[in-house]
Amino acid sequence: MTKHDVAGLQQRLVEFAARRDWEQYHTPKNLVAALSVEASELVEIFQWLTPEESARIMSDPKDAFRVRDEVADVLSYLLRLCTVLDIDPLDALAAKIERNETRFPAP
Amino acid sequence: MTKHDVAGLQQRLVEFAARRDWEQYHTPKNLVAALSVEASELVEIFQWLTPEESARIMSDPKDAFRVRDEVADVLSYLLRLCTVLDIDPLDALAAKIERNETRFPAP
Amino acid sequence: MTKHDVAGLQQRLVEFAARRDWEQYHTPKNLVAALSVEASELVEIFQWLTPEESARIMSDPKDAFRVRDEVADVLSYLLRLCTVLDIDPLDALAAKIERNETRFPAP
Amino acid sequence: MTKHDVAGLQQRLVEFAARRDWEQYHTPKNLVAALSVEASELVEIFQWLTPEESARIMSDPKDAFRVRDEVADVLSYLLRLCTVLDIDPLDALAAKIERNETRFPAP
Repeated sequence: MTKHDVAGLQQRLVEFAARRDWEQYHTPKNLVAALSVEASELVEIFQWLTPEESARIMSDPKDAFRVRDEVADVLSYLLRLCTVLDIDPLDALAAKIERNETRFPAP
Repeated sequence: MTKHDVAGLQQRLVEFAARRDWEQYHTPKNLVAALSVEASELVEIFQWLTPEESARIMSDPKDAFRVRDEVADVLSYLLRLCTVLDIDPLDALAAKIERNETRFPAP
Repeated sequence: MTKHDVAGLQQRLVEFAARRDWEQYHTPKNLVAALSVEASELVEIFQWLTPEESARIMSDPKDAFRVRDEVADVLSYLLRLCTVLDIDPLDALAAKIERNETRFPAP
Repeated sequence: MTKHDVAGLQQRLVEFAARRDWEQYHTPKNLVAALSVEASELVEIFQWLTPEESARIMSDPKDAFRVRDEVADVLSYLLRLCTVLDIDPLDALAAKIERNETRFPAP
């Protein structure tokens, strides 16, 4: 269990953007572009690694920091997008898992 | 407030993958690739829209469904990655917000 | 050697867009988004494959068609971008190879 | 017209990789990942710009250099992929334009 929750972090991101007058840049179109750029920065860490090397990435402290940092960036833009579009990300995921249970029946 | 929590959804995704014997595919390298592909599916929805059209995306029920569906896919692979690499996504984001407060001081 | 050349294909893409009145959508910002979406559609083909399976992709005619089709889409948006921004793609690449010869000296 | 041609640049990229013993990393799976990362580096340049600002990107020499540099990186990995998979990129594009003429008839 974590002491942070999604709604609280979304609120901090709202205040972070508002204080810097960045809300004008945070159109849905721009936020999805930024999200995809951050996702690619995660890919960049792994792009030349073998599957086995990729599984050991967290054993190097510098790589581990970088991965955590990029995971945070992806989550940050995903939550900003959800705030701007009034989407509940956890409800959306729960609904998708249910659709996937039907789409890919377990053996 | 939502009735779902991140740890619970991560657990459901663990079970979903395990029952289908998909864990073999879920190397960190493959998961970040899948994450970036899903992020691009979000971009695809917005790619030809003006900023103003992008802000109205949720007013069309079909588009709204598609956006929610792709948000769920991005979150799904992000949480799978966090499980596989033993990263707490909310802690990672809280730490990043703190670093950003220093990096981009509010006026 | 091929009978097609880059300048001729760029001209065909100009005419293709003009006849459909699509030039209004082809801002540099939209074209780079579309380019990244097509690049991700290539990634999607390979995302769950092992390195070895990825090396054999062209042995299946359906996969081979899909790869060629996505390669064409990536090249198509890259050339449209170059036309719109008045960049010579082959000159840009030759210049980059020269910079890389200095940056990564051969042993 | 340009003094460079695609086949010649592909050959230079083959030699560049071979001299550095980088061919081992250039699996199709890794090359498409690298291609998508470079496409995202192009997106990053444009992500917060308005459509109008994006259309003026080449008027700033530093931005113009960066765009040309990333265009070259995208083309570089696209041509490496084509070499490794024995795809003729210009033939693939010409075939795709013909399919698109049928798929999207001009008015």
